[in-house]
Amino acid sequence: MSDHIYKIIEITGTSDKGSDEAVRNAIARASKSVRHMRWFEVLESRGTIKKDEVESWQVTLKIGFSLED
Amino acid sequence: MSDHIYKIIEITGTSDKGSDEAVRNAIARASKSVRHMRWFEVLESRGTIKKDEVESWQVTLKIGFSLED
Amino acid sequence: MSDHIYKIIEITGTSDKGSDEAVRNAIARASKSVRHMRWFEVLESRGTIKKDEVESWQVTLKIGFSLED
Amino acid sequence: MSDHIYKIIEITGTSDKGSDEAVRNAIARASKSVRHMRWFEVLESRGTIKKDEVESWQVTLKIGFSLED
Amino acid sequence: MSDHIYKIIEITGTSDKGSDEAVRNAIARASKSVRHMRWFEVLESRGTIKKDEVESWQVTLKIGFSLED
Amino acid sequence: MSDHIYKIIEITGTSDKGSDEAVRNAIARASKSVRHMRWFEVLESRGTIKKDEVESWQVTLKIGFSLED
Amino acid sequence: MSDHIYKIIEITGTSDKGSDEAVRNAIARASKSVRHMRWFEVLESRGTIKKDEVESWQVTLKIGFSLED
Amino acid sequence: MSDHIYKIIEITGTSDKGSDEAVRNAIARASKSVRHMRWFEVLESRGTIKKDEVESWQVTLKIGFSLED
Amino acid sequence: MSDHIYKIIEITGTSDKGSDEAVRNAIARASKSVRHMRWFEVLESRGTIKKDEVESWQVTLKIGFSLED
Amino acid sequence: MSDHIYKIIEITGTSDKGSDEAVRNAIARASKSVRHMRWFEVLESRGTIKKDEVESWQVTLKIGFSLED
Amino acid sequence: MSDHIYKIIEITGTSDKGSDEAVRNAIARASKSVRHMRWFEVLESRGTIKKDEVESWQVTLKIGFSLED
Amino acid sequence: MSDHIYKIIEITGTSDKGSDEAVRNAIARASKSVRHMRWFEVLESRGTIKKDEVESWQVTLKIGFSLED
Repeated sequence: MSDHIYKIIEITGTSDKGSDEAVRNAIARASKSVRHMRWFEVLESRGTIKKDEVESWQVTLKIGFSLED
Repeated sequence: MSDHIYKIIEITGTSDKGSDEAVRNAIARASKSVRHMRWFEVLESRGTIKKDEVESWQVTLKIGFSLED
Repeated sequence: MSDHIYKIIEITGTSDKGSDEAVRNAIARASKSVRHMRWFEVLESRGTIKKDEVESWQVTLKIGFSLED
Repeated sequence: MSDHIYKIIEITGTSDKGSDEAVRNAIARASKSVRHMRWFEVLESRGTIKKDEVESWQVTLKIGFSLED
Repeated sequence: MSDHIYKIIEITGTSDKGSDEAVRNAIARASKSVRHMRWFEVLESRGTIKKDEVESWQVTLKIGFSLED
Repeated sequence: MSDHIYKIIEITGTSDKGSDEAVRNAIARASKSVRHMRWFEVLESRGTIKKDEVESWQVTLKIGFSLED
Repeated sequence: MSDHIYKIIEITGTSDKGSDEAVRNAIARASKSVRHMRWFEVLESRGTIKKDEVESWQVTLKIGFSLED
Repeated sequence: MSDHIYKIIEITGTSDKGSDEAVRNAIARASKSVRHMRWFEVLESRGTIKKDEVESWQVTLKIGFSLED
Repeated sequence: MSDHIYKIIEITGTSDKGSDEAVRNAIARASKSVRHMRWFEVLESRGTIKKDEVESWQVTLKIGFSLED
Repeated sequence: MSDHIYKIIEITGTSDKGSDEAVRNAIARASKSVRHMRWFEVLESRGTIKKDEVESWQVTLKIGFSLED
Repeated sequence: MSDHIYKIIEITGTSDKGSDEAVRNAIARASKSVRHMRWFEVLESRGTIKKDEVESWQVTLKIGFSLED
Repeated sequence: MSDHIYKIIEITGTSDKGSDEAVRNAIARASKSVRHMRWFEVLESRGTIKKDEVESWQVTLKIGFSLED
């Protein structure tokens, strides 16, 4: 049966550089425990503030990866 | 303690037949790695189009299963 | 005054065949207590799982029916 | 520049057979005026009721198609 | 690299005492399989009714825990 | 036909004690006019404030009950 | 026990004059079958179009009324 | 095949008189480029403020019109 | 630096005349404490009912005003 | 003019006891800077976890208070 | 009549550089077929993953442009 | 009592450089009037378009800051 099935996990990446970098960090870390990642979707963009500046960007993603048979 | 606890995972099933079949495929595949599935909820119904026809139906589910003590 | 007024109720239909059949069952049962049903809208599609298969499809509908003067 | 761009339109398909058929009818009709359709997403599932039965299924889709350069 | 990454899981806790107790039960059970839990967020508060009284409170949580490098 | 059908009503319960008590009050009152209640879901938690303190907790529920054939 | 309980119903009012008038019509009609109405909330504002003009305004309301003990 | 298909477009109408007038202006303008308009739905009601008064009402509509075969 | 910054506040205006008048009343009152208001957005339209008629329209707005440097 | 106007602010209260206590703490603190508070609405219920137990409950409220003329 | 009317379209832009670049690409491509674009709003930020890295950023926008009389 | 309380305000920052810069500008400006800012959350990303290019990025944030006792 060739129908594809995907599992979706939710990861929050952080970065002190920017929101796109937080996305990349989340995916890099997720690659240590899941394989065959196919897509992501941004759920939430937040961050912490320290001394009136952005201390860290926190972006929460859904990541979909295909399940092998 | 008899209180029940459930874990919820998110799975996208696909099918070239229809949306209900995509749900069944997602549950069939999930059964290979989780046990005690109890319910599902449809989050999103999408699909791909090829040559002006539905190529595959993609239905994303939340699936709840009970955690054994 | 010819302005029409509708009341909206919420019904969950179930079926072991599929999601469309659950919609039809909800409407069939609702017809026993309300008249002049005009439209429905799907709010939620869920179901129960037993032995790794869909046991029942549960579709929650809003159903609108016109109120007679 | 090889970056792809997609336009998204919204179409309501109807059918007296069922919800999946309404999706297929929407895509078939859309193919008369747009080309290169790639995916769809179900936004809303509704229908009309006549004599206590579903008269027509109405499914509203977003359809994405690629814009050629 | 000191950027923190969090994984988020979804758990439904139940209790016959109340909604806060259902949250505590979910977290207690989750602690058996994940470590470094940092925060939770309530997604949904439901329950079952038996003989006209609340039989069980069911609260669904997102729980975030940090992933160690 | 053994397929079950549920009707869902919306009730706001109030209490000067707390939010869970408002849920219980809503269900207790609903039991005077409907039978076979099966589940509830919290839609909204609000309240009134008087002299800088919570005067009443107001919790709006959906309550599902099965329709007998 | 002085805790108040409210039931909430959903009504669509229509008018050919405007959206506020559709609200008033819905409440006027609801008053024929329920008593002690206390508040309303607009859920949806729609309408039908005929010959390029608004034919009727359709406003769907939640209406809350208090249940007497 | 008699199944009807509708296309849905999104238009923002403005008016300095009021929110219903903004709806009417949107429909009047849309009638210059589309035919067979059947319904509208209000998505968003906004406006601009000048010198502490409403300068213009801006109402965004979805408008559905039937596609001829 | 010429980049503009806006602050957004939330105000509920009321009126016994209609929903647009409730918007105008909210803005008129807000003008007593904030300056440089630029836009509004309707968040919620509600009201109270007395003797089966609308007693007051209550419209909740977000109002944006520019912050001077 | 007797039309009432309300301003709405957003406050996160915390407590190590439970979610209702977090609501009460938010209102108690808000009473130091605003007067004439009339109602609240729960927007979000979260919390922090330490050593596998709830460390603090964090409940975010909208609080409405009337503006005096 | 000087009331302005806007049409809103939905476009997905992609980029291998980042999310802001995907927005710019969407607008650049849209400029080939529509004129008088006035504003955009981000609806959804997604992307594809290949070999554990972001392959393309996909940002879906609403774009509003004014309709000339 | 050591329970922390936070107030949340809503600010729109703008920038002609990009969306992250708009966030930083909003926080920089907010620091002139509030102290002890702790976190932010992106609510909405929009912008204006001029001559077929992004003229300004407009990002609306919730900013939370702790209230001192």
